Amino acid sequence: MILGSTGSIGCQAVDVVLSHPDDFRVIGLAANRNAHLMADQIRKLKPAFACLVDEGAARALKEDYDCGARIFSGKEGIEELCALDEADIILNSIVGSAGLAATLAAIKTGKRLALANKESLVAAGDLVNKELKLHGAEMIPVDSEHNALWQCLNGEDRSEVSKLILTASGGPFWGQTNEQLATVTPEQALKHPSWNMGRRVTIDSATMMNKGFEVIEAHHLFGLALDKIEAIVHPQSVVHSLVEFIDGSLMAHLGPTDMRLPILYSFSWPKRLNASINKLDLALVKQLDFAHVDIDKIACLKLAYQAAKSGLSYPTALNAADEIAVDAFLDKKIGFTQIGDIIDTVLQQLDAIPVH
Amino acid sequence: MILGSTGSIGCQAVDVVLSHPDDFRVIGLAANRNAHLMADQIRKLKPAFACLVDEGAARALKEDYDCGARIFSGKEGIEELCALDEADIILNSIVGSAGLAATLAAIKTGKRLALANKESLVAAGDLVNKELKLHGAEMIPVDSEHNALWQCLNGEDRSEVSKLILTASGGPFWGQTNEQLATVTPEQALKHPSWNMGRRVTIDSATMMNKGFEVIEAHHLFGLALDKIEAIVHPQSVVHSLVEFIDGSLMAHLGPTDMRLPILYSFSWPKRLNASINKLDLALVKQLDFAHVDIDKIACLKLAYQAAKSGLSYPTALNAADEIAVDAFLDKKIGFTQIGDIIDTVLQQLDAIPVH
Repeated sequence: MILGSTGSIGCQAVDVVLSHPDDFRVIGLAANRNAHLMADQIRKLKPAFACLVDEGAARALKEDYDCGARIFSGKEGIEELCALDEADIILNSIVGSAGLAATLAAIKTGKRLALANKESLVAAGDLVNKELKLHGAEMIPVDSEHNALWQCLNGEDRSEVSKLILTASGGPFWGQTNEQLATVTPEQALKHPSWNMGRRVTIDSATMMNKGFEVIEAHHLFGLALDKIEAIVHPQSVVHSLVEFIDGSLMAHLGPTDMRLPILYSFSWPKRLNASINKLDLALVKQLDFAHVDIDKIACLKLAYQAAKSGLSYPTALNAADEIAVDAFLDKKIGFTQIGDIIDTVLQQLDAIPVH
Repeated sequence: MILGSTGSIGCQAVDVVLSHPDDFRVIGLAANRNAHLMADQIRKLKPAFACLVDEGAARALKEDYDCGARIFSGKEGIEELCALDEADIILNSIVGSAGLAATLAAIKTGKRLALANKESLVAAGDLVNKELKLHGAEMIPVDSEHNALWQCLNGEDRSEVSKLILTASGGPFWGQTNEQLATVTPEQALKHPSWNMGRRVTIDSATMMNKGFEVIEAHHLFGLALDKIEAIVHPQSVVHSLVEFIDGSLMAHLGPTDMRLPILYSFSWPKRLNASINKLDLALVKQLDFAHVDIDKIACLKLAYQAAKSGLSYPTALNAADEIAVDAFLDKKIGFTQIGDIIDTVLQQLDAIPVH
């Protein structure tokens, strides 16, 4: 089951399934409104079911394309898809806050949830963990860093972890002053040095809010205190993350910067399958760089730690405010450094409530 | 039980036990002939038993030092020590070929063998594996690279491994031509850039024969074909080794260059214990470099692959010839590049026989 199949991660998941025809079969696809791409995916994957949230697009998919799947529509269509007995794994790669409902619907089925919607944990980590426990479901993170941490923790006792270290490319503006950042355009910010990602994630990566979200995600995923979760700048994005243990050992996951790798792993776990992607050759990479991240100097990252520490609805508001501020930046309504300013203002005025 | 307690690894193992008084207790110590240091270790660790292989030194230890342990002597003394019921773990850090007998004696007891004697596997890997199977004993490698590989394989299925990648500092002469190497003195070769080790290992590291031995060890330890075991130059020795899996994932073990870490792990496994050593800070290390190793240009490494591939007594002879050639180099009887020449000559003249 691929939820959000027409997005960046969704398309790569389709690719993963197509290159492993003997290992996986897609039962259902869901997306927001892209009927044309969805029809194409249905032709390739031949799922029995599909869903477009947008009613008009769902109608168009039914009427204009002859694709053979039973078509659902609306948000309840996604819930119907999740509940189908035939599926063992649900990949939630829906972008943005809209993904939370799908995460909760997936967890309720007790199936494996491959989670590529970071808002689920950022905005409602406690709730998601409560539901996971309640329904005995398993959740594997697809996000490159968290999938790397998950792999580093394979066979390890989580009580022996002393630190989770999330690598950050630093984005295209690492090392620039606030004055330089103020003049950054959306076009400049959308050029990410190492990963090919969606638009919002790319901007969040440039502000390092993305890393802040990942810290919050890791906190909920692995149950570790925030002061044991760090970010380190690593421009090559070859080391995807590291776990430090109490004995001084560090386990690191390295690989090509290709999201198909963590997607495949989230499907195949606990096994690994042959991947047809180019392997990483460290001798060709030659050099890996690392630099300390000064949280106090990076507005969005600092806000994320503060919101996570405050708990309640602060992380939820952090995520919502960021989503809107990034949109405003992409629409050229605000400048790059105002993203953090706006989120800060929102958090300061927030009348926080519990999220559960 | 610490065999070879007065050597470089042995002394660090004593240190590990002393810093974990609640976790470990030493039942017996064994060494070759250093009665003075052994007496000191007995006073600190209070083992019930000790052994010096050299009869005169054992007598001196009994008569000249008042240390309270029951003293064995001779090679059979080591076997008696291994057989003591009180011990759960036997660390074999005896240097050189002499360690093989101790490895076999330890395996026969069915106890955990923490192996820091690489000659055991290089010279008699098939025999050691046969004995391990026969006696159902477990063996954990202490050597930094192999301990790293062991950790990378934690929780993993070995059939999903595509490559073992051993990091090599490259030694102090990496990149030098044969002409430059010909004039290298023992004093220059004994200055290793990153690890503090015994004399022979340091020279073996400079010729990269050490890496060749490690390739053979890894082959026997992890049951992987030689063409799936590679060396890569990594001057900082921060990445201790890596495992590549069929899905393109690479798991790496990183840490401070401190042998107490793998020693502790070989004792505490499958648990990890708090270590009082300085943790690794990648942001302080700043940069990790990697370079391709051209086996054809590194005489000793090439000889090791050839010997391993030929099997029979070739690896045994490789090790013995290297031991003698390195001694000759340290005694200034031969030049640095002659180490490889002599081993090559020995292997070419060898009338190979099976080792089992």
